[in-house]
Amino acid sequence: MYYPEPIAKLIDSFMKLPGIGPKTAVRLAFFVLKMKEEDVLDFGKALVNAKRNLMHCSVCFNITDKDPCSICNDQYRDRSIICVVQDPKDVIAMEKMKEYHGLYHVLHGAISPMDGIGPEDIKIAELLKRLQNEEIKEIILATNPNIEGEATAMYISRLVKPSGIRITRIAHGLPVGGDLEYADEVTLSKALEGRREL
Amino acid sequence: MYYPEPIAKLIDSFMKLPGIGPKTAVRLAFFVLKMKEEDVLDFGKALVNAKRNLMHCSVCFNITDKDPCSICNDQYRDRSIICVVQDPKDVIAMEKMKEYHGLYHVLHGAISPMDGIGPEDIKIAELLKRLQNEEIKEIILATNPNIEGEATAMYISRLVKPSGIRITRIAHGLPVGGDLEYADEVTLSKALEGRREL
Repeated sequence: MYYPEPIAKLIDSFMKLPGIGPKTAVRLAFFVLKMKEEDVLDFGKALVNAKRNLMHCSVCFNITDKDPCSICNDQYRDRSIICVVQDPKDVIAMEKMKEYHGLYHVLHGAISPMDGIGPEDIKIAELLKRLQNEEIKEIILATNPNIEGEATAMYISRLVKPSGIRITRIAHGLPVGGDLEYADEVTLSKALEGRREL
Repeated sequence: MYYPEPIAKLIDSFMKLPGIGPKTAVRLAFFVLKMKEEDVLDFGKALVNAKRNLMHCSVCFNITDKDPCSICNDQYRDRSIICVVQDPKDVIAMEKMKEYHGLYHVLHGAISPMDGIGPEDIKIAELLKRLQNEEIKEIILATNPNIEGEATAMYISRLVKPSGIRITRIAHGLPVGGDLEYADEVTLSKALEGRREL
């Protein structure tokens, strides 16, 4: 024990965060000692409040401080489209774009047999239930463009197709601002496959 | 405002820490939501306790939860040597070595005219006062091996020399495990200058 106990405890807490090792934890803990007391108190409160006051929206399973969430509650949004994403952070990414005005459904994961995550471990059943109760015209599958995300999209599309609801997948292709030269083969092949008439 | 307020506040708090930008702050905040409630409460308490219960030792100015600190209070340590360092973290580095058993004096900075830090802004006067009151035989200057640290060491050594107390500077040279090939010229020249008879 080289550190006085209060700072040792703080270092331990910082080390529980992802990507923060012992050296960074020490640096952050000593920084906290130099912060304004007010800011430190706010930080402490913010931690506890975020943990205690946030929940999952009972409709779309996005993270929210009131149920249903502000998006599900917003009467100006197009209630006939659901965009299916893996993570609450994906909702933020979509909202930042400011071009999508439909609803969301957060799966909280993707099917991944390697990690022991099956369809019943993510919010797929809840999505199907929404399709029965609400009048949905289109489902946009915006899961991640990797193996797990693709598998999840395929799985959901097979379940939903028989119902006649239009089901789409966001496009794969070259990222804007990217360079053809540095694109990997799979992306390039997807970009070619998805080419459109001009 | 894309985030529910409790998480937006937590993201803001994380962003006040050094080296944590908006993306990392979001990642950490969402991680907190998945942490055990107990761990989050501990984290919050640790923050506030570290800020409220830590102070500077009135003797050596190290960070401590009781005054004087455990090192200044330890009767088994050699009370005739003071190792002068810039930062409380440097005390930890020295203690980890387990070979130094004297006392410390933390300056809380180094003389740096470029940043407007003069001798009166760091704990030099307090060091001189200790030399009058305590019976000190040696002062080891362990400030950082850079311009500011060297300037501070020179400044202190000139002030202390007339008193006849032995004053030493930690050695410059090649780090153990380092490679001669990659050493910079200044370090190499210092290593040569400080060579010792075998």
